[in-house]
Amino acid sequence: MTTTWDIKPLNNTNLGLISEAINQKTKPLGALGELEALATQIALIQNTKTISINPVMIIFAADHGIADEGVSIAPSIVTQQMVLNFLHGGAAINCFCRTQNLPLFVVDAGIKYPIKPQPAELINQRIAAGTKNFSQEAAMTLTEAEQALNLGAALAQDFIQRGFNVLALGEMGIGNSSSAAALLAAISKAPVEDCTGRGTGIGDEQFIKKTGLIQQALKRITDNSPITLLSELGGFEIAQICGAMLATAQAGKIILVDGFIVSVAALLSVEIHPSVRDYMIFAHQSHEKGHQLLLKRLNANPLLDLGLRLGEGTGAALAVPLLKAAASFYNDMATFASTGIDV
Amino acid sequence: MTTTWDIKPLNNTNLGLISEAINQKTKPLGALGELEALATQIALIQNTKTISINPVMIIFAADHGIADEGVSIAPSIVTQQMVLNFLHGGAAINCFCRTQNLPLFVVDAGIKYPIKPQPAELINQRIAAGTKNFSQEAAMTLTEAEQALNLGAALAQDFIQRGFNVLALGEMGIGNSSSAAALLAAISKAPVEDCTGRGTGIGDEQFIKKTGLIQQALKRITDNSPITLLSELGGFEIAQICGAMLATAQAGKIILVDGFIVSVAALLSVEIHPSVRDYMIFAHQSHEKGHQLLLKRLNANPLLDLGLRLGEGTGAALAVPLLKAAASFYNDMATFASTGIDV
Repeated sequence: MTTTWDIKPLNNTNLGLISEAINQKTKPLGALGELEALATQIALIQNTKTISINPVMIIFAADHGIADEGVSIAPSIVTQQMVLNFLHGGAAINCFCRTQNLPLFVVDAGIKYPIKPQPAELINQRIAAGTKNFSQEAAMTLTEAEQALNLGAALAQDFIQRGFNVLALGEMGIGNSSSAAALLAAISKAPVEDCTGRGTGIGDEQFIKKTGLIQQALKRITDNSPITLLSELGGFEIAQICGAMLATAQAGKIILVDGFIVSVAALLSVEIHPSVRDYMIFAHQSHEKGHQLLLKRLNANPLLDLGLRLGEGTGAALAVPLLKAAASFYNDMATFASTGIDV
Repeated sequence: MTTTWDIKPLNNTNLGLISEAINQKTKPLGALGELEALATQIALIQNTKTISINPVMIIFAADHGIADEGVSIAPSIVTQQMVLNFLHGGAAINCFCRTQNLPLFVVDAGIKYPIKPQPAELINQRIAAGTKNFSQEAAMTLTEAEQALNLGAALAQDFIQRGFNVLALGEMGIGNSSSAAALLAAISKAPVEDCTGRGTGIGDEQFIKKTGLIQQALKRITDNSPITLLSELGGFEIAQICGAMLATAQAGKIILVDGFIVSVAALLSVEIHPSVRDYMIFAHQSHEKGHQLLLKRLNANPLLDLGLRLGEGTGAALAVPLLKAAASFYNDMATFASTGIDV
């Protein structure tokens, strides 16, 4: 069964009214730069007179068979260890969420070494104990890819039901920068070397191996449909994020995109349904090599550029205050008319 | 009387310990990019095991005689109107401070049309009813320049006494981008055209007039000492901000630098005492033309680049969450040792 998505492109009917509202604020025209574009996008998405930011951070974790090839700085067990770190509040993303009072949820989308007993606070959406090694065979079956999309979508719908209107999506998975680079190369047709980065810090030898394995995998692929690419090269977390993005856009809510891995999920979801792009806000330009190419392809101008290369959703969490600032000036700034200030 | 400043350069003795503490956090080496450099600077300034961010926003407002030449998009009365807007909570800076629970104070450093009766919540540090037209004569006397520096310094000391340890400094003053451009040109010796921008949005004709008036003023100046430059070209708000920066550094606290105007005050204060630079965090790259040149001269790599050109302290307010994020990861992230995560 293939899910069909009903995602409406943004209705620009109110664009004139929104611009007029921004231009009447007590500031020179355009003086709030990118925050004005941000407020405009939020106002178009929400289609209400005042706009609101009620964000949640959801981290999807999964493992990757490709990690067996030694293309990462750490072994797959670190995915489990970092999930525990998230649950115990000790990771960077926990710190950033705490300073913003941003609720954080963690999803097991298919880590290799499950946490036993299953902690109540960990959302169980396991597809399998990690994907297969995509350099040798399909990472997952088409059925698993569909299942992952649907689980991600259902979870997003659940969070939207609870009242959240900005879904900030993060990820954790040893090996997932290889999967993301392979997906980017397959979709963009750009050289693998341009799509592949050092992940969290591999050396030259591992890098050459990583690009070689990706090239090997790409040779096998003849069908470039998004769902086939997901099954051949994807990760369970990437597929679930992709589903979450599609469901968020379908519900008319905001998707806050983190770094390289999540941006690849964004690219895939745009391949599945182009209108999902309208609902995306890009948090940051990461240090990872392929990210710039990817952002350009998505016509995205991210809010932050802090040289981050951590993932977890850290860049998205850091961008949340900018969304709140945009909403605040849009809702609450005085107008020239109300203050009598000479334009 | 010339004030002498006792500002200690940062002591780098603990740099190794600080780097070690950051490198032991549960993340790949360097993965938090610029936030790691930020946390390091804060830790060096505060010289304590855990670091803290307790910020305040202070806006200094003043008028400029040069505004009589029509080099701005608005007349001097707008300075008064915007001060009232700040006091009533309707400006962009009010919105951004509210979303961050950032206390905001407004200083009358010498606006042309004082607000009568003097509102209790407006800090009265008036030097005069605006400066003189610097294209024709010195903007202020040397005595006034000294007085402004000292008033700014005393105010900063007062806020530090109250427990604030990050002074975010903002400004408002019709005509102050002309004053700032003139100061930058005088100090940097760069061509006036490279130092001068469109302020909040002037056209070509006004721009040519603006650069011409600055060039005219610069011809008269033979003594390039910072205090002479302040008196010849300065504004009362720029001089008070300069004094506030020097006092903040002297007290070993953090200066959060906003956009073009405040960065010129930063440049001047570095001319007065080079060690003040160690205590500065640069919030953002503004849209104003001379700002990039100025930041380069100050060896500054600002945190944000959002195309802002509003002043008021808006860029500084938007950067506050990044300081909090840096402190949060530095203080609260788990270490590899504490979690047992495989490095």
